Amino acid sequence: MGKYPILETVHSPADIRKMDYQTLEKLCGEIREFLVETVSRTGGHLASNLGTVELTLAIHRVFHTPEDTVVWDVGHQSYTHKIITGRREQFSTLRQPGGISGFPKPGESVYDTFTVGHSSTSISSAYAAACANKMQGNGLCSVAVIGDGAFTGGMAYEALNNAGRSKTNLIIILNHNAMSISRNVGAFARYLAVIRSKPSYLRLKERTEKVLDHLPVIGPHMKETLRSSKSLLKFLLYHATFFEELGFAYFGPVDGHDLPALEQTLRRARELHSPAFIHVETTKGKGYEFAEKDPMAYHGVGGFDIETGNPDRPAMDSFSTVFGEKLSQLADQDDKICAITAAMKEGTGLSGFASAHKNRFFDVGIAEQHAVTFAAGLASKGFRPVFAVYSTFLQRAYDQILHDAAIGRLHVVLAVDRAGLVGDDGETHQGIYDVAFLSSIPGVQIFAPASYQELETLLERAVYRETGVIAVRYPRGSQPEGLPEPDSGDGDYRRLGESGKRAAVSYGRTFASLWKASRELEQPPAVYQLRKIYPLPEGLLEELIEFQEIFFFEEAEAVGSISEHLEAALCARGWKGRFEAATLPSAFIPQGRVPDLLAEYGLDQESIRRRLQEE
Amino acid sequence: MGKYPILETVHSPADIRKMDYQTLEKLCGEIREFLVETVSRTGGHLASNLGTVELTLAIHRVFHTPEDTVVWDVGHQSYTHKIITGRREQFSTLRQPGGISGFPKPGESVYDTFTVGHSSTSISSAYAAACANKMQGNGLCSVAVIGDGAFTGGMAYEALNNAGRSKTNLIIILNHNAMSISRNVGAFARYLAVIRSKPSYLRLKERTEKVLDHLPVIGPHMKETLRSSKSLLKFLLYHATFFEELGFAYFGPVDGHDLPALEQTLRRARELHSPAFIHVETTKGKGYEFAEKDPMAYHGVGGFDIETGNPDRPAMDSFSTVFGEKLSQLADQDDKICAITAAMKEGTGLSGFASAHKNRFFDVGIAEQHAVTFAAGLASKGFRPVFAVYSTFLQRAYDQILHDAAIGRLHVVLAVDRAGLVGDDGETHQGIYDVAFLSSIPGVQIFAPASYQELETLLERAVYRETGVIAVRYPRGSQPEGLPEPDSGDGDYRRLGESGKRAAVSYGRTFASLWKASRELEQPPAVYQLRKIYPLPEGLLEELIEFQEIFFFEEAEAVGSISEHLEAALCARGWKGRFEAATLPSAFIPQGRVPDLLAEYGLDQESIRRRLQEE
Repeated sequence: MGKYPILETVHSPADIRKMDYQTLEKLCGEIREFLVETVSRTGGHLASNLGTVELTLAIHRVFHTPEDTVVWDVGHQSYTHKIITGRREQFSTLRQPGGISGFPKPGESVYDTFTVGHSSTSISSAYAAACANKMQGNGLCSVAVIGDGAFTGGMAYEALNNAGRSKTNLIIILNHNAMSISRNVGAFARYLAVIRSKPSYLRLKERTEKVLDHLPVIGPHMKETLRSSKSLLKFLLYHATFFEELGFAYFGPVDGHDLPALEQTLRRARELHSPAFIHVETTKGKGYEFAEKDPMAYHGVGGFDIETGNPDRPAMDSFSTVFGEKLSQLADQDDKICAITAAMKEGTGLSGFASAHKNRFFDVGIAEQHAVTFAAGLASKGFRPVFAVYSTFLQRAYDQILHDAAIGRLHVVLAVDRAGLVGDDGETHQGIYDVAFLSSIPGVQIFAPASYQELETLLERAVYRETGVIAVRYPRGSQPEGLPEPDSGDGDYRRLGESGKRAAVSYGRTFASLWKASRELEQPPAVYQLRKIYPLPEGLLEELIEFQEIFFFEEAEAVGSISEHLEAALCARGWKGRFEAATLPSAFIPQGRVPDLLAEYGLDQESIRRRLQEE
Repeated sequence: MGKYPILETVHSPADIRKMDYQTLEKLCGEIREFLVETVSRTGGHLASNLGTVELTLAIHRVFHTPEDTVVWDVGHQSYTHKIITGRREQFSTLRQPGGISGFPKPGESVYDTFTVGHSSTSISSAYAAACANKMQGNGLCSVAVIGDGAFTGGMAYEALNNAGRSKTNLIIILNHNAMSISRNVGAFARYLAVIRSKPSYLRLKERTEKVLDHLPVIGPHMKETLRSSKSLLKFLLYHATFFEELGFAYFGPVDGHDLPALEQTLRRARELHSPAFIHVETTKGKGYEFAEKDPMAYHGVGGFDIETGNPDRPAMDSFSTVFGEKLSQLADQDDKICAITAAMKEGTGLSGFASAHKNRFFDVGIAEQHAVTFAAGLASKGFRPVFAVYSTFLQRAYDQILHDAAIGRLHVVLAVDRAGLVGDDGETHQGIYDVAFLSSIPGVQIFAPASYQELETLLERAVYRETGVIAVRYPRGSQPEGLPEPDSGDGDYRRLGESGKRAAVSYGRTFASLWKASRELEQPPAVYQLRKIYPLPEGLLEELIEFQEIFFFEEAEAVGSISEHLEAALCARGWKGRFEAATLPSAFIPQGRVPDLLAEYGLDQESIRRRLQEE
């Protein structure tokens, strides 16, 4: 018998449907141990998964997955789901190259219904499945499981608004742990907290009627009045929550760790055949002491020691921390600087800023659209807003950058973190499209520092010496090693090495690899580092046009890349030389170690050296 | 004395602040006459402006504009605002080249605080202004005026969530006319209707207490119990609406045509110094019989006859109507086809589909993000969703196209209407960025029909012979005249005319101009029409590489354009010829007549002929 005697008997949801509650309780314990053991080695999302063990079992026991549709919002809480749907044995490959994804992925299992990774999409896709079921008349259910954090994203409301009173078998499960990635913010979170703090809230409907029943003379009369009148009281009594007002039957709050209670509620909702909203309370990190005490620290983790909870590797400096410290320093001297985050205070390095400049720090929730327009609004009043955001999430705000900031030439600085390949999170999180979509917005400038020092100087330049929208983009993690001697660090570009017939161009992290590769060559090309990558720096074309061969190494998607823009610009000037670009393909790049991926696409030092040597 | 004796005395809001109500009532009448007269000549948004005359006056009388900030959501209801803030005399140039914009535009007046044109942005920017005021401690107010239609856009909730309980002087005015562009849909609209249908709704707080006061014995006791307990009833009585639950003081509903009542409410809200939500009821089209009876028909209009209400020009066929009819025909034979619109049923030509296939027609509200993910969800269940949307509004769904549809290779058809220059609506509405942002998303195919027949065949091809995300893009209005003889109409590209040393390439509307221009030349180039514009059609490069000179005419923004992609691809193959592209600049293009704009950028028949002849 193995370490997980019950879990090892679970090969599909059918196996858990026949278990009794005593066995299931043990199974939950085993799953938690298994989760802690795996994630302590692979890294990944821990606290959210520990919080949803019972909920996942309840869903798979009550609903006929995979025929019934279940969509996990954001998807990083789907580990238990993966483990019990036939992927336990591969689970040790979580987030590893070629292994199990940290997010639901339809190609991986029929139980993974929809690609997820970004927040607040689940109600839209689950409602679509509910409509499909209705059109087909198959009687199946569709379930969205969404956290309170994801409810700060506007898409969730667009879908709620559309789905309310739709006469579909849609069930929305709110996984309420009052702790999204950062502590959840905003008025809606407070509203949920109010409901949560009154477990008796909804039973009061019945209670009130009972009280009235027992009041002599006046009670029954009042009750009748309430029922027959179209009064406020009736409205309020019979439409107890916002969700009911929007046309959902409301159930809850339910203890998310009480499996029988969960199942009972899910069954009642399933039998409705109309939209239901189930409010489930869970504890993030449940069952692993360190995570329960500090769920934020165990939201997304690298490997750690199970006994002590200590991370395998100490926290390192990173572009994010350097950015946060520099911005906070600037703000010490300048009360017009504001920092904005979309629920990523820690990830973007803004914790220090938030403490030091509380009244100028704005965590707007998982709401990138609002964040950009809010920044534009601050800029219109003479403030200097800096919105720090991961490249992949900035995709949400394309229209707001264009329509709300760029048209009005408002001075908004975008600190674009996790630009480039991000590694373990895979397709949904690669930061490789921002170069294309930002360069297509008229007037947007894009800076790409390669070192901490350059990040500092370019950030300062973006805040003080430019106007309009300026994106400063930098990769996940630390600055690369082996960079050349720094110069002032804020020139649009610089040339290193002698002129000749060959030039090699790059920017950001890849520039370091190019530089080191060029040092290994007997006949190195002239090496160009771009810092302002778009619009193309003044003077660059005039210099490059003198070369017969130009190589460009770029960690961005090919279509809309800087190398494409540069190549077209050179050709438009009648340049007849040879242009070779190594970029990422126009494709979705799966999870893998960043160094491996860079090597695969010809963007590590060794590949660059070979490429330049062959010629 | 002129035709508008009172209006002519109004040069700034100061002039209306000193008027008495009798004079103001007359002024409202004059403004309405003036609006009808102007819009009957210029075209524009009529019904929404007739509905907000009193509201606009009340806002400018109560608030100290321009120091207090007022943001008009979407902005097409800002005509009265423009008229009373110094732009009455230029108002006859509304939406004309070089004239007054149909939307607020900061460059036009200090009273226009923010660029608007797209929906649901006002709370974000007004809240930013409120935060700026708070940080500066200047005591000023910030006001967002937002319609119930715009409340179906998720951004509005992101901002509400962020602004609730913020201790800022933010006032949100809900302009509730229950009629956005199409009849407003969704659960939230129904919720508002419930409030609206109970004018006494909020006074019931007081009334209930009064009733209880008058109940012998039990009443005062109950009242006390309610007050002291933390019961549901107390919660409900003192948190009457969702808005209050989110931390806004709620006022209303107020009759939006009762100026004194409006002003009284605005004053009370202004004095709060904390977020307020004012629910105002207005009648769209108020005061012009035809518009009041059929506000949808008078939402956005061309010129019309004031006496009869009849439009100057009869409704013409258009790409939109052809699209809608074709899709409805396909759906007659195929019950998997679904049509989706984001509150643009009429504009996108889907009225017929909606009648004929009610259960497969989805108007999701002004919610492009949800629309795309909803379409992806339907596709994942084997349906064939077609989302018809204006190019400019599709910008909102960049992330959803990439993350929810393209990564999973789900078969979603985007019918991209108003692609290219749109004319009168100006910078905020040009459909000239979709080529860049769609081509940067891996796997997305873009088709561009030049004629109705091509639209039909390419739509059918997109639905039945392709998979993944396919965008079929076509311009506003009718098919161009003078197109060459049709062929089958769904080839990726075709060549017309003889080979030689010169080729000229184009697609869509501009192709017609190129074709006609080439017919005028003694030595016409080989003319290429692209239908699948991206990825570049197979075989095209091999053919084009044989030419020494290639001209590309393209009605899209330069950066990320097809001509840029083609040029880079040709150069990457070692082609050494001469490439000349005429595109739109990477800039925001102001309002103007489409033919004039095309001529300005070298994309009309005459410019193309000259360009080709010069060479």
